[in-house]
Amino acid sequence: MQLGMIGLGRMGNNMVQRLIKHGVDCVVHDASATAMEQMRALGAVAPSTLEAFVERLEQPRAVWLMLPAAVVDTVIAALMPLLGAGDIVIDGGNSYYRDDIRRAADLEPQDIHYVDVGTSGGIFGLERGYCLMIGGEQDIVAHLDPIFSALAPGEGTVPTTAGREGKGRSAELGYLHCGPHGAGHFVKMVHNGIEYGMMAAYAEGLNILKHADIGSRPETSSAETTPLRNPEDYQYVFDLPEIAELWRRGSVIGSWLLDLTANALQADPRLAQYDGHVSDSGEGRWAAMAALDEAVPAPVLSAALYARFSSRGEADFANKVLSAMRHQFGGHLEPPGRK
Amino acid sequence: MQLGMIGLGRMGNNMVQRLIKHGVDCVVHDASATAMEQMRALGAVAPSTLEAFVERLEQPRAVWLMLPAAVVDTVIAALMPLLGAGDIVIDGGNSYYRDDIRRAADLEPQDIHYVDVGTSGGIFGLERGYCLMIGGEQDIVAHLDPIFSALAPGEGTVPTTAGREGKGRSAELGYLHCGPHGAGHFVKMVHNGIEYGMMAAYAEGLNILKHADIGSRPETSSAETTPLRNPEDYQYVFDLPEIAELWRRGSVIGSWLLDLTANALQADPRLAQYDGHVSDSGEGRWAAMAALDEAVPAPVLSAALYARFSSRGEADFANKVLSAMRHQFGGHLEPPGRK
Amino acid sequence: MQLGMIGLGRMGNNMVQRLIKHGVDCVVHDASATAMEQMRALGAVAPSTLEAFVERLEQPRAVWLMLPAAVVDTVIAALMPLLGAGDIVIDGGNSYYRDDIRRAADLEPQDIHYVDVGTSGGIFGLERGYCLMIGGEQDIVAHLDPIFSALAPGEGTVPTTAGREGKGRSAELGYLHCGPHGAGHFVKMVHNGIEYGMMAAYAEGLNILKHADIGSRPETSSAETTPLRNPEDYQYVFDLPEIAELWRRGSVIGSWLLDLTANALQADPRLAQYDGHVSDSGEGRWAAMAALDEAVPAPVLSAALYARFSSRGEADFANKVLSAMRHQFGGHLEPPGRK
Amino acid sequence: MQLGMIGLGRMGNNMVQRLIKHGVDCVVHDASATAMEQMRALGAVAPSTLEAFVERLEQPRAVWLMLPAAVVDTVIAALMPLLGAGDIVIDGGNSYYRDDIRRAADLEPQDIHYVDVGTSGGIFGLERGYCLMIGGEQDIVAHLDPIFSALAPGEGTVPTTAGREGKGRSAELGYLHCGPHGAGHFVKMVHNGIEYGMMAAYAEGLNILKHADIGSRPETSSAETTPLRNPEDYQYVFDLPEIAELWRRGSVIGSWLLDLTANALQADPRLAQYDGHVSDSGEGRWAAMAALDEAVPAPVLSAALYARFSSRGEADFANKVLSAMRHQFGGHLEPPGRK
Repeated sequence: MQLGMIGLGRMGNNMVQRLIKHGVDCVVHDASATAMEQMRALGAVAPSTLEAFVERLEQPRAVWLMLPAAVVDTVIAALMPLLGAGDIVIDGGNSYYRDDIRRAADLEPQDIHYVDVGTSGGIFGLERGYCLMIGGEQDIVAHLDPIFSALAPGEGTVPTTAGREGKGRSAELGYLHCGPHGAGHFVKMVHNGIEYGMMAAYAEGLNILKHADIGSRPETSSAETTPLRNPEDYQYVFDLPEIAELWRRGSVIGSWLLDLTANALQADPRLAQYDGHVSDSGEGRWAAMAALDEAVPAPVLSAALYARFSSRGEADFANKVLSAMRHQFGGHLEPPGRK
Repeated sequence: MQLGMIGLGRMGNNMVQRLIKHGVDCVVHDASATAMEQMRALGAVAPSTLEAFVERLEQPRAVWLMLPAAVVDTVIAALMPLLGAGDIVIDGGNSYYRDDIRRAADLEPQDIHYVDVGTSGGIFGLERGYCLMIGGEQDIVAHLDPIFSALAPGEGTVPTTAGREGKGRSAELGYLHCGPHGAGHFVKMVHNGIEYGMMAAYAEGLNILKHADIGSRPETSSAETTPLRNPEDYQYVFDLPEIAELWRRGSVIGSWLLDLTANALQADPRLAQYDGHVSDSGEGRWAAMAALDEAVPAPVLSAALYARFSSRGEADFANKVLSAMRHQFGGHLEPPGRK
Repeated sequence: MQLGMIGLGRMGNNMVQRLIKHGVDCVVHDASATAMEQMRALGAVAPSTLEAFVERLEQPRAVWLMLPAAVVDTVIAALMPLLGAGDIVIDGGNSYYRDDIRRAADLEPQDIHYVDVGTSGGIFGLERGYCLMIGGEQDIVAHLDPIFSALAPGEGTVPTTAGREGKGRSAELGYLHCGPHGAGHFVKMVHNGIEYGMMAAYAEGLNILKHADIGSRPETSSAETTPLRNPEDYQYVFDLPEIAELWRRGSVIGSWLLDLTANALQADPRLAQYDGHVSDSGEGRWAAMAALDEAVPAPVLSAALYARFSSRGEADFANKVLSAMRHQFGGHLEPPGRK
Repeated sequence: MQLGMIGLGRMGNNMVQRLIKHGVDCVVHDASATAMEQMRALGAVAPSTLEAFVERLEQPRAVWLMLPAAVVDTVIAALMPLLGAGDIVIDGGNSYYRDDIRRAADLEPQDIHYVDVGTSGGIFGLERGYCLMIGGEQDIVAHLDPIFSALAPGEGTVPTTAGREGKGRSAELGYLHCGPHGAGHFVKMVHNGIEYGMMAAYAEGLNILKHADIGSRPETSSAETTPLRNPEDYQYVFDLPEIAELWRRGSVIGSWLLDLTANALQADPRLAQYDGHVSDSGEGRWAAMAALDEAVPAPVLSAALYARFSSRGEADFANKVLSAMRHQFGGHLEPPGRK
């Protein structure tokens, strides 16, 4: 099996390495000469032009794009005149699923197939494999099975759920054809929404533990603030790295995200290198928008997302409005010295 | 009718003025000689010791405390040996209703009565009157009616709700005996919870309007952030003072809080004098705790409260945890230049 | 001044009555013969065909649509061939502001102008006037000023905010040209988002008061549920109609929505005629989507919206997932007898 | 090593089995003769009276209580006259950490030691081991190490976090002395708060997937509800059991809770046996209360908790208030046919 990969950033680079290791012939392309050279050293074919890249692919060609969502359409437009009937374009990045639906419709008249793949696994995917959520036509997805199988983690040490006899095998190996065009990125979008919620759950919990010593700190007394009623109940100084390590074994909240959290806390319990300005890459917002369109409540996913917005200062004007109202009706001044 | 008032801060001072204007004899006490002098000039009796203050009150004495919640117990303890059977202590400040229940039980063996009054109105109360939410024994509250009536706003221009014939008149005048000990502060606590929610609703809405020009601002392109899909839909530069003024007439969201917001935005549309570090004075937390005890959902009141906590930097460690996780699994760096 | 009105439902009907009362000549159209007949009786011209309706309008024609959002495009399409250069179409319903932008662009080549008007006031608007949030071209909006002025509440008893000398007068009368196409419905969308938040704040607060007697109710003891730690603190039976009436005077949370709540509670303190399945008409969702696009946090507005979704049973599957997890890890059964 | 266990319910029973398997001598007590008989069959000593139970324990006695939180104080009171100086009472149930602080202080004058243990693991703990969060005096906790070690999962297949050389070993085995009295249940309380948040994240995400076919369902058109703008984007019928199985391998959101969810969905994708009335057992509320006391935001944990309250109908009156307001201002009726 052969695959063409465009985009050799953090994700694409690792994926090509994993594919080569699993015996897939890789033809690659990227604007960075360094990235190209590195891939050649690993055994990939790396032609320097897009035209040459396409020519080196056997028909029907399979071209995997691993690019920032913002440039996918541009690259597809450049590829279009070079591809032919039966060829397949795969978007493995973080596209919005509605773009998948549109692109598949755009490519269809020329008999070019489109497959969307939501890819989870991050920088650990090279080693652990990538969880792949796939949308597209049945036969095209089936044709690409060796690629997906090579990228996916395989069964590993995760035991299969009881009662799955007779059900599809691929989910047990870490990849799944989820439905028609866009289904892969839809499932990935929801996946990331869940991820935001889980991350925020850990973050809030650890923050509560972090402040459990509040009763031992001198209180700034003020008519503006209620005194803590029971300081004797908040005298704990918790060792967060130890607690994160503890929860990894036998508890209900064990998870890979917790493993990573334990890693980070072990390196620095105060996480001093981080500012706490948290980005969001789109899927969380789209997941919330899907909830709004479907009229299903998603308070946890939304709260997690909004906390990220707030962490970047986006609530500042709202907070000024609150301070202004308080000043108006009560003559309340803001707490001093934090300007 | 006569009333003794202890505490001549922003609230107590204004309340005494309003009482005097309505013909109530006021005996006052405060640690500040300036405040005392000012009250004497207005016609109040202002003895310089607590003992003299108590002596000047006719029996049964009615002593209103208008003090920070944190010092109420101390002052009651000082008063106890000076008061006698049948006397009444009124707490008009922001006490937690559970303290009312405890204090009433503590005073009862000596036949001293306790009344809790949740007082709303802020610095405008002098002119508009105070909305009074009252808890205590039926006959004691009835005895104090002239005091409450003087402090309350009266019917004013607010038309009475249809169908209230035969119902108690006092709610229509702006004061109400809500129930036994603690009932006044319980209702005030919920009142403030609602206030937080309303304030946050306005603040969030105005923040959305404020950022409606985001499509016209140069976007910092980054693999970490999803680009705005439709910048052409976010080209509005709204005049917030005008919009706040507009909503005050005929809209569904007219309110006194909106009047105050219009005031503040008129003075400075950017609210530049405020940092946006928003205090909370206890009632909002207690209201949330009541919801938790009662097992009733209060997502809006809680979200409003948590936004205040976040505005004061209390989410910082939680946000660092999120950044650390993102760095761990995706190698994601925080957005630059905001440190 | 003359206005053509299409749509004589609850809103359109009242608006025509108000316009006629203020001396505006009204030509009306609706599918319902009864509605048309009623309008004729009030002095409106009510031709039975759309063609005749358009013919009766003086050029430049001003046609106000007061229709469900879902049919606006159909009616505009039917109007298009009948209108001429310089004519004006006004959408006063609950359209999404992006539809306004699109429609204005569609009509522009034929020199037909489009104005969007967010209209607040509900069934009380006939009497109180309508708060109007207007988007469109400067000169076209100015041309329609007599219409807006007739519909708007006017200054009424609401005092103008201090310091507004030299600022536009119309906001003080209850209508405002907010910006270009879509600006009116954008501001209305945010207005409704705020409305949802305020409504939820009252609803949650009243629910906390309603359950303040939980300590006096026999507790269903169960290993699944934590017992209430302090039943003695939850013995209050509050009179909600009285409390709502009380808060209307002098309190910080007075508002028109509270006036309406007092009305409803006075009619029936238990609100037994309502199921509590709460609709949402779109603006709340769009406001949340705008917050997501702008990356500004809107936790209160979203929580209010999600509570409505939940009230309609849309969280049911999510809740089953929770029950299933609990059953899996803890053998927990759901509380009996509520199936 | 020997341990006395009081309470042979779902949890206690399994724990004794695990202890016996790991060579700990168990003396047990429970009101249920059946449970006692079963334990005898497994090799435990099971005296029929509390007095005999205590007598069979070697001094210093170690008595582990595995009981509903509501009866712990009663059992401790019954034990008190039977125990002697140096004995140890361990509460392994779901007590509120403040009760631990109080109990430890109550027992101290008699030189009886108290240890609180938050125990996670549910019905799988017998096999997987229990994650133990421990609070109490240093030397007492050290004395009990063989007990904790037997109950805990051990390192298992979870690799130790890098860089932990020289740190305490017990966290890597699944138990940890977290701090003084109450620290164990404090950490467990936060653990459960996180658990609620994670569970809700999965539940909301799966609910969004479940409703992704909304565009294919006939829409009930109504002026009360906005139509779905893009039904073509919501045509997906997702196979939830397959997707849950998929996410277990290689994805960022893998966890033990997800494993359990996959189990439940595999058994019945519609989860028809569940009503979706979700209990909460106290810790989630206490975690939220701790956040309120500490003034740290916990929007995700709270939203998860409130969703449970709502699932049990506790928002009903609040929703009626919303319907009543809507009826008042807009004449809106509730959606028909759902009563």
